Amino acid sequence: MKILVLNCGSSSIKYQLFNMADHHVVAKGGIEKLGMKGSFLKHKHEDGRQIVFEGEILDHKGGIEYILGILTSEKYGCLKSLEEIDAVGHRVVHGGEFFSSSEFITHEVIDALVKCTDLAPLHNPPNLKGIYAMEELIPGIPQVGVFDTAFHQTMDPVAYMYGIPYVLYKKYGIRRYGFHGTSHRYVTKRACEILGRDYETQRIISCHLGNGASIAAVKNGKSVDTSMGFTPLEGLIMGTRCGDLDVGAVTYIMEKEEIGLKTASTLFNKHSGVLGLTGISSDMREVEDAATEGNERAKLALEMYDYKIKKYIGSYIAAMGGADILIFTGGIGENADTTRHGVTKEMEFLGIQIDEDKNWGSRGKEKVISKDGSPITVMVVPTDEEMMIALDTEKIVRENVKS
Amino acid sequence: MKILVLNCGSSSIKYQLFNMADHHVVAKGGIEKLGMKGSFLKHKHEDGRQIVFEGEILDHKGGIEYILGILTSEKYGCLKSLEEIDAVGHRVVHGGEFFSSSEFITHEVIDALVKCTDLAPLHNPPNLKGIYAMEELIPGIPQVGVFDTAFHQTMDPVAYMYGIPYVLYKKYGIRRYGFHGTSHRYVTKRACEILGRDYETQRIISCHLGNGASIAAVKNGKSVDTSMGFTPLEGLIMGTRCGDLDVGAVTYIMEKEEIGLKTASTLFNKHSGVLGLTGISSDMREVEDAATEGNERAKLALEMYDYKIKKYIGSYIAAMGGADILIFTGGIGENADTTRHGVTKEMEFLGIQIDEDKNWGSRGKEKVISKDGSPITVMVVPTDEEMMIALDTEKIVRENVKS
Repeated sequence: MKILVLNCGSSSIKYQLFNMADHHVVAKGGIEKLGMKGSFLKHKHEDGRQIVFEGEILDHKGGIEYILGILTSEKYGCLKSLEEIDAVGHRVVHGGEFFSSSEFITHEVIDALVKCTDLAPLHNPPNLKGIYAMEELIPGIPQVGVFDTAFHQTMDPVAYMYGIPYVLYKKYGIRRYGFHGTSHRYVTKRACEILGRDYETQRIISCHLGNGASIAAVKNGKSVDTSMGFTPLEGLIMGTRCGDLDVGAVTYIMEKEEIGLKTASTLFNKHSGVLGLTGISSDMREVEDAATEGNERAKLALEMYDYKIKKYIGSYIAAMGGADILIFTGGIGENADTTRHGVTKEMEFLGIQIDEDKNWGSRGKEKVISKDGSPITVMVVPTDEEMMIALDTEKIVRENVKS
Repeated sequence: MKILVLNCGSSSIKYQLFNMADHHVVAKGGIEKLGMKGSFLKHKHEDGRQIVFEGEILDHKGGIEYILGILTSEKYGCLKSLEEIDAVGHRVVHGGEFFSSSEFITHEVIDALVKCTDLAPLHNPPNLKGIYAMEELIPGIPQVGVFDTAFHQTMDPVAYMYGIPYVLYKKYGIRRYGFHGTSHRYVTKRACEILGRDYETQRIISCHLGNGASIAAVKNGKSVDTSMGFTPLEGLIMGTRCGDLDVGAVTYIMEKEEIGLKTASTLFNKHSGVLGLTGISSDMREVEDAATEGNERAKLALEMYDYKIKKYIGSYIAAMGGADILIFTGGIGENADTTRHGVTKEMEFLGIQIDEDKNWGSRGKEKVISKDGSPITVMVVPTDEEMMIALDTEKIVRENVKS
């Protein structure tokens, strides 16, 4: 079975074509600056060939058409015809309370997704555009939606409700949803596979540290708490997002700066976090370089970044009555040994015993970085959301499509 | 030395008159509904006599004049003349970054306090009114300001900075200040006195659970982190305050409900928390009664209340590299055995071993409620902010006033 995995953003489309016979990626790539001047498509074939196509790509349908054309082109392609694509798996950001697992896409599912649009006005519409475009371009192709929020739907109300009037939950669905669910699900399962442990019996803390960053508490195979909330703004300090912030500070800043809701949203989502603190960059490598050169605000931002994660780990250890595995994933979690060191130092008393020799220099590889016998096994597990989407898609298509 | 302690709110004045010779309270009381219809003064003498004076009390000066009149009255008083009052200690909510300890009030101190007004527009102005009124009524009387924020000024920037643009800190002083400092200072010191331990070597987690609620991490005698932030709105779920909430939810609610900053502030400060969740009350006793009768939202609110505290305890254990003492104080912390039970259950693995026999039924008394040998000593320590203010005032007046 060949599965195309699509991740449609507002101005980008990422894709990976999987051959599920041996779970390998045949081709992958992405369109950037969709609908803008200077849009381009970068395509990479499994044999290493890579090519960039420049040209005006106007919308999601046009973009996907372009991608399908390249996948089937004689020169750069890997498919004889579109009929070789058996199914499409979509990353969908917000499934609200409708979806607690990946779903075969039907009219009913699309209706529910449209209802979730209000909860993720920036993310769900392009996800839907991708689904509509595929249906137009390859009518009848089986499609599956894999939701960023679904994995966290196992949370108990005690963990997902906020201390606000109950009516706001009933009226607008204001609650903690959590995001990065596909990643947290993948790495927590994968960690248990690697360690040969039963997923249903482990208490795992999963730190997904990338541009966005979230941490999840996964107990006996179920997400029981996570740091992102109603939106992906809450929780850890991120590249450009503020994370946790006093509501009193929010209204104070809006009043003093005389800004409205949209500007405030941009301020806290795009100009805050590591970028806002340092004034240098949202890229941790650049901030680490600046810190090495003695920049005080860069040092502060890095310490704050680590401290916040450390506190969340402590809180989730308390919430789960202990932990068995601690995972680092995402661009920073997989690569930044300094971050892993900063987060886990002085945590031996909690059972987190890092082997610094294993930690230093370890980049992007599946690896246990704790000492033998550490009560909590600490691991680096590179995430692979696309693979998770492909696996879900394969399974659900097999269940739903009569061959 | 006789010291009058004043706590001036926007519509209330609380007072206690201390005789510092033996640290006892000679008289105490309070004015409610100041400046409103139905204002009254309740006065209690140490011999048990208690009386309520009804009558229109228009402003802080009038209120304090009333109090001084009663204190010196032949029938209800305890002073022959106002000259017997040696000094006045004021509770002041916000000392900003100016004050890291209690201060003898001078013109310079008043100038700094005026600058802090912007940070606590509801709280600092009545505190200032109390200071001005005393100076007018007993010219030249030594006065001392004791700040709710001062104890937390030892926090490191890593703990007090938010993940927002650095310029907002420079421009408006947006940072974590923390509150309840006088209470956290009192109970942490008192706990060490009771246990005969050196305050400078203990790692203490102090849970002040009252109408407002905050938790502080105190390491070697210094506050290193606390849950209230720029305002007293952040952190734990409180009687009517939301505590931690996704900034994305704040802007979403404001947009959907079409409310402005003032209404939003009222919503999150006055109509949220336990009251908002249950729709019943902000009083934990009433909510506990409702939960006992099977009210599901009351049960949920109580569980959320405890869960949040549990997570903060975990995070502060992680932040301090462990803990030696855990303290419960404030109206709920001192009295609600069910809350103490809910917070500490399933925390044995972290060294919190409650002796339920000691916990149950213990109300408002200094008491160790953990088992002998529990790695973390868990205590109930009734707070006494007024005593702390009186002690600070005595010390500072002795240092500053030539006899």
